[in-house]
Amino acid sequence: MHIDLDRHSGITLTEQIRSSIADRIQSGLLQEGEKLPSVRNLSRLLNVSLMTVFHAYEMLEHEKLVLRIQGKGTFVQEKSLRFNEWKTQNQLGKPTLDWQNSVADYLPRAQYWRMMQTPLVDVAKLSMAALHTSLIPTEWLSKQFYQYSQVDNTALTEYGPVQGDSKLREAVLPYFRSKNIVTSPNEILILNGSQQGIDLVASTFVGPGDCVVLEEPVYPCTIDVFRKRGATIYTVPIDEEGMQVDHLAKLCDSRPPKLIYTNPTFQNPTGTVMSMRRRVQLLELAQSYNSIILEDDATSDIYFGTEPPPSIKSMDTRGHVIYLKGISKFISPGCRIGFLIADGTFITRLVGSKGISDLGTPLITQKAILPFFSSNQLNKHLPVLREKLKERRNLVLQILNHTAPKNVHWTKPDGGLNIWLTLPPAFHAEDLHANTLKEGISFLPGHVCFAAQQQFHHLRICFSYLDIHLLEQAVTTFCRLLHDFLHTNRHTQQFMHM
Amino acid sequence: MHIDLDRHSGITLTEQIRSSIADRIQSGLLQEGEKLPSVRNLSRLLNVSLMTVFHAYEMLEHEKLVLRIQGKGTFVQEKSLRFNEWKTQNQLGKPTLDWQNSVADYLPRAQYWRMMQTPLVDVAKLSMAALHTSLIPTEWLSKQFYQYSQVDNTALTEYGPVQGDSKLREAVLPYFRSKNIVTSPNEILILNGSQQGIDLVASTFVGPGDCVVLEEPVYPCTIDVFRKRGATIYTVPIDEEGMQVDHLAKLCDSRPPKLIYTNPTFQNPTGTVMSMRRRVQLLELAQSYNSIILEDDATSDIYFGTEPPPSIKSMDTRGHVIYLKGISKFISPGCRIGFLIADGTFITRLVGSKGISDLGTPLITQKAILPFFSSNQLNKHLPVLREKLKERRNLVLQILNHTAPKNVHWTKPDGGLNIWLTLPPAFHAEDLHANTLKEGISFLPGHVCFAAQQQFHHLRICFSYLDIHLLEQAVTTFCRLLHDFLHTNRHTQQFMHM
Repeated sequence: MHIDLDRHSGITLTEQIRSSIADRIQSGLLQEGEKLPSVRNLSRLLNVSLMTVFHAYEMLEHEKLVLRIQGKGTFVQEKSLRFNEWKTQNQLGKPTLDWQNSVADYLPRAQYWRMMQTPLVDVAKLSMAALHTSLIPTEWLSKQFYQYSQVDNTALTEYGPVQGDSKLREAVLPYFRSKNIVTSPNEILILNGSQQGIDLVASTFVGPGDCVVLEEPVYPCTIDVFRKRGATIYTVPIDEEGMQVDHLAKLCDSRPPKLIYTNPTFQNPTGTVMSMRRRVQLLELAQSYNSIILEDDATSDIYFGTEPPPSIKSMDTRGHVIYLKGISKFISPGCRIGFLIADGTFITRLVGSKGISDLGTPLITQKAILPFFSSNQLNKHLPVLREKLKERRNLVLQILNHTAPKNVHWTKPDGGLNIWLTLPPAFHAEDLHANTLKEGISFLPGHVCFAAQQQFHHLRICFSYLDIHLLEQAVTTFCRLLHDFLHTNRHTQQFMHM
Repeated sequence: MHIDLDRHSGITLTEQIRSSIADRIQSGLLQEGEKLPSVRNLSRLLNVSLMTVFHAYEMLEHEKLVLRIQGKGTFVQEKSLRFNEWKTQNQLGKPTLDWQNSVADYLPRAQYWRMMQTPLVDVAKLSMAALHTSLIPTEWLSKQFYQYSQVDNTALTEYGPVQGDSKLREAVLPYFRSKNIVTSPNEILILNGSQQGIDLVASTFVGPGDCVVLEEPVYPCTIDVFRKRGATIYTVPIDEEGMQVDHLAKLCDSRPPKLIYTNPTFQNPTGTVMSMRRRVQLLELAQSYNSIILEDDATSDIYFGTEPPPSIKSMDTRGHVIYLKGISKFISPGCRIGFLIADGTFITRLVGSKGISDLGTPLITQKAILPFFSSNQLNKHLPVLREKLKERRNLVLQILNHTAPKNVHWTKPDGGLNIWLTLPPAFHAEDLHANTLKEGISFLPGHVCFAAQQQFHHLRICFSYLDIHLLEQAVTTFCRLLHDFLHTNRHTQQFMHM
């Protein structure tokens, strides 16, 4: 087992070992019943004291992730696999594959998609941060696929340009100009979904030991990406004005970050909007310390009141901001299209990386999206979408206000798709999730959104994905289960965390 | 400028510095007129002697990649940018972006796609290893897009499974079984083109200093991928039986490779087929040294005589082979679909990486391809494709036999899309390319297919991409230009390389 330890990170070695192993277990990369290295072997391998490893294993046992059996060793607990049943099917009856376990990988954590993609049959997915079918212009898009496939076959017969279809890069300029982002087709890279943008930026500019700053809590797959690069991750908490930039400034003094990731507008998972003041401060900090800002903007088009502040990219005159715009959250996730905007040598290098990564996004999906931007369709679509999502947000907030327990708190987002709930500190959202799953309701337990010291008493629910009647039912049931959970577990939790 | 030096690789430090800088220049990552660090600064930065850097710069000047100006420094030559004009457009008039040059990246080389994607207007691309429109079942595919977009909208409204559409993973089983590869949907990962598979395997299993073996010559983008990972690359030459496995065996004794990349059937660029004997030996070597074999199979379906030997994967009982099957070369490059087959923890880890990389391949392109495998369409398509490509290969070989100079040699491939030509050693294919481009013909200069000591007197032409009449004309003209080139440059070349 390969674990990168950073002896200058300010995080204890015990905690680093604990979280590395926890990540691997929660990602299904260490399997049910698998034996961990002995304390002695791991301490020798990592060149740390016996007690350091011993304490890490003790903490993992306390979290019920591993089981220590006297005289036999330490094993991964069965419970940890509740999201990974599919995997064991692959492994059965092939002992000849055991040698594979000795092949070290560069994948310390791959939690997010596994959590989201567990086959949940007949489950109302409050966990899913996506649009309901009725909110997606499917008929329009279908017609485009149809028309395009009749008129022009080049999308099927050619490798498209690595940087993306030039017509689409041209067609999105007015959209970005309406967001005060003045750019050119040469500075746009079309992605296979905006997630790919995070991965490309990381694999191009971030390597082992490079310092990366994430908001806390954060979109979980971001943690997966930067951990895969071996980055040293620092986190900056957010409050109602977004990332606490004064906190970041202190961090910069001691360790200037190579890259700062932010999702400033209707942040996933909290729904928070970074204030204008902080946006300016953040950009100034990046300029002072020669840092890259990776601005992930998935939902700034989905606002329910006044328009949110302009993107940081729109204020960027010196090429510090690499801007990501996914369309999954406001047009269609199925097309897997995202846009990256950067300038100077950044865009050159990122296009190079894209070529290495997959030779380019499929032309057919780009062509299907093209008329959405080149016609007036987007301008027709957005106001309707905002109205419908606002109605859903209001509905959910209303149910929460009326029926959620008084000691639970939640954000009241002015846009986006998500609400972030906070239980009293002693309660564990994963335990609640086990209960709600039994009644057919899923949500996102919040601990996966923390890169360093995980907090277990948060969760994210999404108001955009379910049919609206099902949404109403699901949130109502959720509130009932929340009451039961807090009541039943009051004493146990207090005891356990004493 | 960040250069990874490996002091145990057996390659001189001078050569490592030379090739790193050459790669960056040929990739357009170091720009026209850009000043290189002084000999003194670079020697200090890399902790090597002044003479080591001096000799590297001297070699780069000899290759006409840099220009040394007495008292001023060393600069990137203008010539090197002939394929990168597009880039300079991005850079003009933005001096405020200069700070970006101080941001180190992990992208030492990104040569392939830049070379292939240069906008060549009115050029007959013998360089392009793809199918002509007439060879692609476009009408069939168009109809699928149309039907699918009418019948079912889920492909537009949902994030598909990270591992790929389960129906497609099921539907390809008979195809793989016909190739003696017995697998299951759990062991298949659907990619956004098979290039993504190379990148995923590298980013999951290969890191700085890990030993990777490539065939020589090799598909150039493979070099880009493994260089990006900081791997130590060793090369094994191929002969008419494919990779020289006895050479590999010696290498394994001194430095067991973590991964061996091979393209055993109608290899790109040479068209060579690895013999059955060597396939078995290669698998045995991988088993002895706990190595991964990455078997890239793009064209085994395109054979002109007897069927080629079975894939190495089909003989693999212990999970050593990760098998890649792209469909770009025999169905359609536009769909950007590839399949990866692996078992045990390898597939688990690779699916994890795919999730981190892009959350999954678009469902719509998978759905469009599905009926090709689930119906009898593939079995109807392949025999016709083979027949047509054989005709094209015969045509090109005939022209070469009749009109190419006697001191030029070429492979006679029994399948695939490419022919590999070898000029007398003193001649430089890039110089020839400059001539043919003037007459509207492109090919792939062979030096990009060499990971270490580049050879400059090879080139690849492809017989599948052009309209057949244009193909005939282009190859005929190419032969004439080849005569002129060898004749005109005979004395110069002999002088230069004395």
